[in-house]
Amino acid sequence: MSPSGAHLEVWLLTAIEAALAGGAVLRAHWPMPRQVHEKGFRDWVTAADLAAQEAVVAVIRRHDPAHRVLGEEGTSQEEAREAMAQGIVWVVDPLDGTTNFARRLPYFAVSVGLLVEGEPVVGVIYAPLQDMLFTAARGRGAFLNGRPIRVSETERLEQALIGLDWGHRNETREQVLAWLSSLAVRCQTVRAIGSAAMGMAYVAAGWLDLYFHLALQPWDVAAAAVLVREAGGQMNRPDGSPWTFRDAEAVVSNGRLDRVVWALLGESSGR
Amino acid sequence: MSPSGAHLEVWLLTAIEAALAGGAVLRAHWPMPRQVHEKGFRDWVTAADLAAQEAVVAVIRRHDPAHRVLGEEGTSQEEAREAMAQGIVWVVDPLDGTTNFARRLPYFAVSVGLLVEGEPVVGVIYAPLQDMLFTAARGRGAFLNGRPIRVSETERLEQALIGLDWGHRNETREQVLAWLSSLAVRCQTVRAIGSAAMGMAYVAAGWLDLYFHLALQPWDVAAAAVLVREAGGQMNRPDGSPWTFRDAEAVVSNGRLDRVVWALLGESSGR
Repeated sequence: MSPSGAHLEVWLLTAIEAALAGGAVLRAHWPMPRQVHEKGFRDWVTAADLAAQEAVVAVIRRHDPAHRVLGEEGTSQEEAREAMAQGIVWVVDPLDGTTNFARRLPYFAVSVGLLVEGEPVVGVIYAPLQDMLFTAARGRGAFLNGRPIRVSETERLEQALIGLDWGHRNETREQVLAWLSSLAVRCQTVRAIGSAAMGMAYVAAGWLDLYFHLALQPWDVAAAAVLVREAGGQMNRPDGSPWTFRDAEAVVSNGRLDRVVWALLGESSGR
Repeated sequence: MSPSGAHLEVWLLTAIEAALAGGAVLRAHWPMPRQVHEKGFRDWVTAADLAAQEAVVAVIRRHDPAHRVLGEEGTSQEEAREAMAQGIVWVVDPLDGTTNFARRLPYFAVSVGLLVEGEPVVGVIYAPLQDMLFTAARGRGAFLNGRPIRVSETERLEQALIGLDWGHRNETREQVLAWLSSLAVRCQTVRAIGSAAMGMAYVAAGWLDLYFHLALQPWDVAAAAVLVREAGGQMNRPDGSPWTFRDAEAVVSNGRLDRVVWALLGESSGR
């Protein structure tokens, strides 16, 4: 099924309303005293996370009661990947950047994406403390607060701003370190903000030239995948082949830096 | 000379007014098309940088015509370190996070500090896009938007959020990589925002537990030094001895993590 223009428009508005609703919950909770429960090493759930998810899902269900909604809370990665492959599915990450939020570091976002038969068609990422709303629908372009955005034109690695996130497992971090040891002395500089959705949105906006994450979860990417493509960017596996929702490792870029980066990463991955 | 309470209060208000004035200039320039001139590899000067410095210095001179003002633009590091050692000196970094600003990455700050006989006594850091105003005066505590802030109580490295910036020289980056290879798999996670003033302010606010920078310039630190100390934090050299304005390498922390971190850094520095 290919969604009609009218459908896309309605879904995009629903996603925007939902992301803003979730963001309002996060903004209200941010200054409150923290009630943080440990959910394993380096992973946290907060009351705000759950409240934001409720707010996002309520908006989606009101406008679109027919379709499934997958939230980070209460879904396994495997269930999510399975469910995202077919039909029409909303994919919600109510709080991307949970560690930041738990520590009050002001970088976190709500991510709301819609997939049709495995294809991402609508994506909205909202950073409530910065009031930055990134929006995209397939074939309609990508926008920040209503203005068109586009990936950068950087072609030379030494002029590139590279973003990354560390992931939680030590194995992943060792791999990030290996990549960094190739990239950090060759690029302009490196950023680690702590929100995958924001990192990918920044590539779409042209603020970063490349962003990599080696332990992505499906709800991290549903919205960003549309945003990056509509802004002219690319998502690939570390070996340079096209990324799919089944892949945890992704390199998101402006599409111009890739050859030199694949060469370096190939070396440092031992591939 | 020990500044009287009334002096301190007036100087703090001057620093706040100056930082807000500089921030308004940066906020106005941020969405404009970039006129960026290369100032060597990975280093940029923008028209906004100069305009912000003018705005900051104008406020200081109006309220305090008697004392010297050192700005990043137009001063060498050595001149600055010399001048900061004696008398009453304002130290201004009109745009900390220049690379971010040049690329529109929304993390940058104005830093305004005052030193009396080499001792930092007033420090203000203002992040205009987030409207976050960090303020401190010696003996009066540290504040964010008027509310008291305090360093974190994190004692265990595996719960620590560590911030860093990369510096520009490859030698420095290799050293950062060596430290990261010790720290990244042992701490909760690592952030690199791209503004030294903000990184240190975040330690003061308790959002990061430790921040390190191996190529600090004197104007990066004039404001942050007061802020960190007033919030209960510490600034040390990598060997654990007290940091001074003559040192380019600094480890800023909540003062509780230091022993384990010194041990690790000692190993990875080959010290």
